[in-house]
Amino acid sequence: MEMKQAKRVEITIEAPMETRLTDALDRAGVTGYTILPVLGGSGRSGRWSREGQVSRAGGMVSIICIIRPERLDELLEAAFGVVERHIGVVCVSDCQVLRAERF
Amino acid sequence: MEMKQAKRVEITIEAPMETRLTDALDRAGVTGYTILPVLGGSGRSGRWSREGQVSRAGGMVSIICIIRPERLDELLEAAFGVVERHIGVVCVSDCQVLRAERF
Amino acid sequence: MEMKQAKRVEITIEAPMETRLTDALDRAGVTGYTILPVLGGSGRSGRWSREGQVSRAGGMVSIICIIRPERLDELLEAAFGVVERHIGVVCVSDCQVLRAERF
Repeated sequence: MEMKQAKRVEITIEAPMETRLTDALDRAGVTGYTILPVLGGSGRSGRWSREGQVSRAGGMVSIICIIRPERLDELLEAAFGVVERHIGVVCVSDCQVLRAERF
Repeated sequence: MEMKQAKRVEITIEAPMETRLTDALDRAGVTGYTILPVLGGSGRSGRWSREGQVSRAGGMVSIICIIRPERLDELLEAAFGVVERHIGVVCVSDCQVLRAERF
Repeated sequence: MEMKQAKRVEITIEAPMETRLTDALDRAGVTGYTILPVLGGSGRSGRWSREGQVSRAGGMVSIICIIRPERLDELLEAAFGVVERHIGVVCVSDCQVLRAERF
């Protein structure tokens, strides 16, 4: 099947920053992303955990964008503007996508 | 440690399509996958969000399969049959797995 | 933007093993990871599903570590000691990280 080269960007960020980040992505023309809940983790500020129900309150979320390679720099600039002063990790990997006509 | 080359396939799809997709994967001989909840996202049909509890109702799920490279085409054919007419993204990346004897 | 090469390690494991695994990661000097809830899946022991609320009870979790390449072996040894006798998959891929100074 025909696949197209793309970049997968995974941004793990404090949940209260989610809307600020997705607004920045929208302004940078990134229209496709998926938001995953995070149960707990560990980082520079130690371990943390979210017991019971999964909600956005308190914890972190992980936002995954799959984009054309030429859009990467713009996305990273937008993300960095939000992540810079907060807890967060931005991880980029190569991937291939099936439904390239939708990109 | 001995690692084996594999493919990681991430399929984000509407939650009501989940069983249809996993049935198609089963028929294609894909016996290992993991289903992650999705809190919200943005795509061709705009932004969407799932407030409160995470459940399968309404939203999207992300299905991750880690397979031997030679099985990729069969998996993609199976996934495409389900995803084609619905909202969904299929993203493939290279990976290495530790417990290769279990594949 | 300046990116740094890293490894993304995704460990899917039975939820009751989570603390044992993160303790082993801590001892191996892995201080950054994110824990994602898992809704269901399929593996050597067949299909399983978690209806209703997402919690750690019963199911699986997916632990994602982003580490410097030279730390990979130590992480894999630590993870393997926990995963070896249990259900679990360890998947490694190459990635690039934005905030490298925090690693």
